[in-house]
Amino acid sequence: MQDLESLSASQAIRALTRREIKATDLLLACLDRIGQRENTVRAWTSLGKESALRRAKELDRGSVKGLLHGLPIGVKDIYDTYDLPTSYGSSIYTNHYPAIDAVSIALMRQAGGIILGKTVSTEFASFKSGPTANPHNQHHTPGGSSSGSAAAIADFMVPLATGSQTAGSIIRPASFCGVIGFKPSLGKISTAGVKSLSQTMDTMGCFGRTIGDVGLGVAAMSGDHELATIRELHNKPRLAICKTADWRMAQKETAGALALARFAAEAIAKGKVDDYKLPTPFNDISQIQTRIMTAEISRSLTFEQIRFPKKISPQLTQQLSNGASISYEQYAKDLIRASELKLLITQIFNNEVDVLIAPSAIGEAPATKENTGDPIFCRGWTLLGLPCININITTGTLGLPVGVQLIAGTGKDHLLLSVARAIAYALPDPVARDQA
Amino acid sequence: MQDLESLSASQAIRALTRREIKATDLLLACLDRIGQRENTVRAWTSLGKESALRRAKELDRGSVKGLLHGLPIGVKDIYDTYDLPTSYGSSIYTNHYPAIDAVSIALMRQAGGIILGKTVSTEFASFKSGPTANPHNQHHTPGGSSSGSAAAIADFMVPLATGSQTAGSIIRPASFCGVIGFKPSLGKISTAGVKSLSQTMDTMGCFGRTIGDVGLGVAAMSGDHELATIRELHNKPRLAICKTADWRMAQKETAGALALARFAAEAIAKGKVDDYKLPTPFNDISQIQTRIMTAEISRSLTFEQIRFPKKISPQLTQQLSNGASISYEQYAKDLIRASELKLLITQIFNNEVDVLIAPSAIGEAPATKENTGDPIFCRGWTLLGLPCININITTGTLGLPVGVQLIAGTGKDHLLLSVARAIAYALPDPVARDQA
Repeated sequence: MQDLESLSASQAIRALTRREIKATDLLLACLDRIGQRENTVRAWTSLGKESALRRAKELDRGSVKGLLHGLPIGVKDIYDTYDLPTSYGSSIYTNHYPAIDAVSIALMRQAGGIILGKTVSTEFASFKSGPTANPHNQHHTPGGSSSGSAAAIADFMVPLATGSQTAGSIIRPASFCGVIGFKPSLGKISTAGVKSLSQTMDTMGCFGRTIGDVGLGVAAMSGDHELATIRELHNKPRLAICKTADWRMAQKETAGALALARFAAEAIAKGKVDDYKLPTPFNDISQIQTRIMTAEISRSLTFEQIRFPKKISPQLTQQLSNGASISYEQYAKDLIRASELKLLITQIFNNEVDVLIAPSAIGEAPATKENTGDPIFCRGWTLLGLPCININITTGTLGLPVGVQLIAGTGKDHLLLSVARAIAYALPDPVARDQA
Repeated sequence: MQDLESLSASQAIRALTRREIKATDLLLACLDRIGQRENTVRAWTSLGKESALRRAKELDRGSVKGLLHGLPIGVKDIYDTYDLPTSYGSSIYTNHYPAIDAVSIALMRQAGGIILGKTVSTEFASFKSGPTANPHNQHHTPGGSSSGSAAAIADFMVPLATGSQTAGSIIRPASFCGVIGFKPSLGKISTAGVKSLSQTMDTMGCFGRTIGDVGLGVAAMSGDHELATIRELHNKPRLAICKTADWRMAQKETAGALALARFAAEAIAKGKVDDYKLPTPFNDISQIQTRIMTAEISRSLTFEQIRFPKKISPQLTQQLSNGASISYEQYAKDLIRASELKLLITQIFNNEVDVLIAPSAIGEAPATKENTGDPIFCRGWTLLGLPCININITTGTLGLPVGVQLIAGTGKDHLLLSVARAIAYALPDPVARDQA
């Protein structure tokens, strides 16, 4: 049998529910791995060892609780947890214990999940990075804002971890760390109890090492339990490559990953996998997303700006000031543009294509821990509220992972997972196929 | 000069910013009124007298802070406040002090608003009523779930108070208490820091005694400061009466209010004010809203169901159990229906009508404090995310107020306020005209 800590969430759940392994042993294996690696990776802000062990023992003794029975889970530290400190990535909230779990965390516990600890977020899930290193090379960023969750999954510390995305905070770190990141349709998972950046775009999701794992995670977090079982494709999907208006930013590693993804896609698609050029109204979508997000963050963090201005980093202070200078008139115009683009993309997914394949990031993880990389290739898809999944495709010239993201129409989360699995199976690299 | 506590928010702000009155005196007048009436009305769960007085003195000494400079405000007790206990209408959270203000509350404080206290909510803004009485007749309900806020405004305890609506929790109590209730477009005000019932429909808003007052409140809560100034109508609006598929539920008082509203509307409308019959796909919208809300509440309160099942009322326990029995498949179908209806209503507001006039409630406030009345006439509009405002129209056979609601297209909040004011000016009853 392989080491317990290297089991995927789906493998672990199969073994746990058949009582072939104990939740306690899986948890201890994860804690061992964390003990060996945390000094280097620094993925965690807190661990609840005792309460997790107590819970694991209860679950080993009792009946099967649900989809996540006995699974150790990392929770991004912008999700409220009643039993673990929740700092939102800010020194303002050191040792803050919320009274209530975030709704999605309570749902994971109800499904038998064991919340093992909290993972590093950038400051308020914005741009100032935390201490986490990329497990593949500690001098590189793991991406952000869900830095700790992506790194913990890549480093086999836990099989499942939560994330959130307002610009590119799930897809980008997933690509940089070589793991699966799944941002389901906007609104699928409740945002209640998660520190709010943008009321228009904050989207909850999760990380895992296989496509089945993230389906399982989002199934529990949302209540859509059928997502835990990925359906076979009955018809060949219409697939296309979408380089977006920001393609000039893509580095050669991203171009290479997209070429490999096209190759795999052609093996399963209906017809040829052509490039799909979005209509011209989409040309400035990244700018629209940036303005809406910046304006909304500035209002969302009003409490902290009034009471703790000196505990906000200079970077974020600058961003908040940028946000405050955006007129409400501009913001309202951008919201109207966003709703027009949502209508347009709905028509495109209804009539022309089932899944688009697009860059996840500019290239490999940059050699810095001062910032978490550029979310440019995620901004538009997040604004549109579409389900997106990063799959790992190849290794770049620096020896770091490079992924691509697949995108489906709103509400087509099931289809997206099915297509992602089919494409992963068709990838040339046998390691990449393990994701399926 | 009239008594300070009877000034509308807009009158008070004008006098405060011109330094004709002091914030301290206005606050003391409100506290006096509360002292006289609270034993009967029971609108409040807590008052922060000392901190409010301290803040009022600061504001009297300093420069004008913003839109709400020196205005005492009541906050529905499902909004988090860092300095006042926040119980969400549940005994689970007695003496709970959140670490952070709800975003909209921080914005009100930033604008110079003084949070005077928390107002009674039904249990988790659901259906089990609190102790509040209707100020017009203490044996009748004030409506819910924003019971305390509506009653406090009607009883001249404060000039402005926040509310929230998932089914009919702003419009219905506004109608029962004879005040203005404004539920702006879905998403206009951030829901962050407000206890979540339904991720799809929870909508923040406020109560006041004039249309200008609720514009002012939502301006501060949202950041759309232009809502504080109601624009003149430059063109005659297209108006229609919309009785909805639930019209059989309307009592004669509601029919009478609608007739009076039609009379006033005809004085300002472009052409005749006819009945508008929504297309047949809208026939079951109240049922769709009920299923989505019930399913989502059941997930949103998972934490409380796991940890404090005995502190949930039998009524709510039953509702949560109903919600848990709705399949995700049904829920997903209902969400698709909702998005289809949103598209359809957008076309209707683009092409056929500017503002619809519809019942706010079945009739007068029922003679009970065991429940808060039926939200049937609000369910559909809330699901559609449209801005709605209740204006007081007449007095029913029981001597209690009866309002109607006006409804505009998404994002047309400014237009809605302008039309509401024009209609209020055209009402036959001089008291009703005071609302304008």
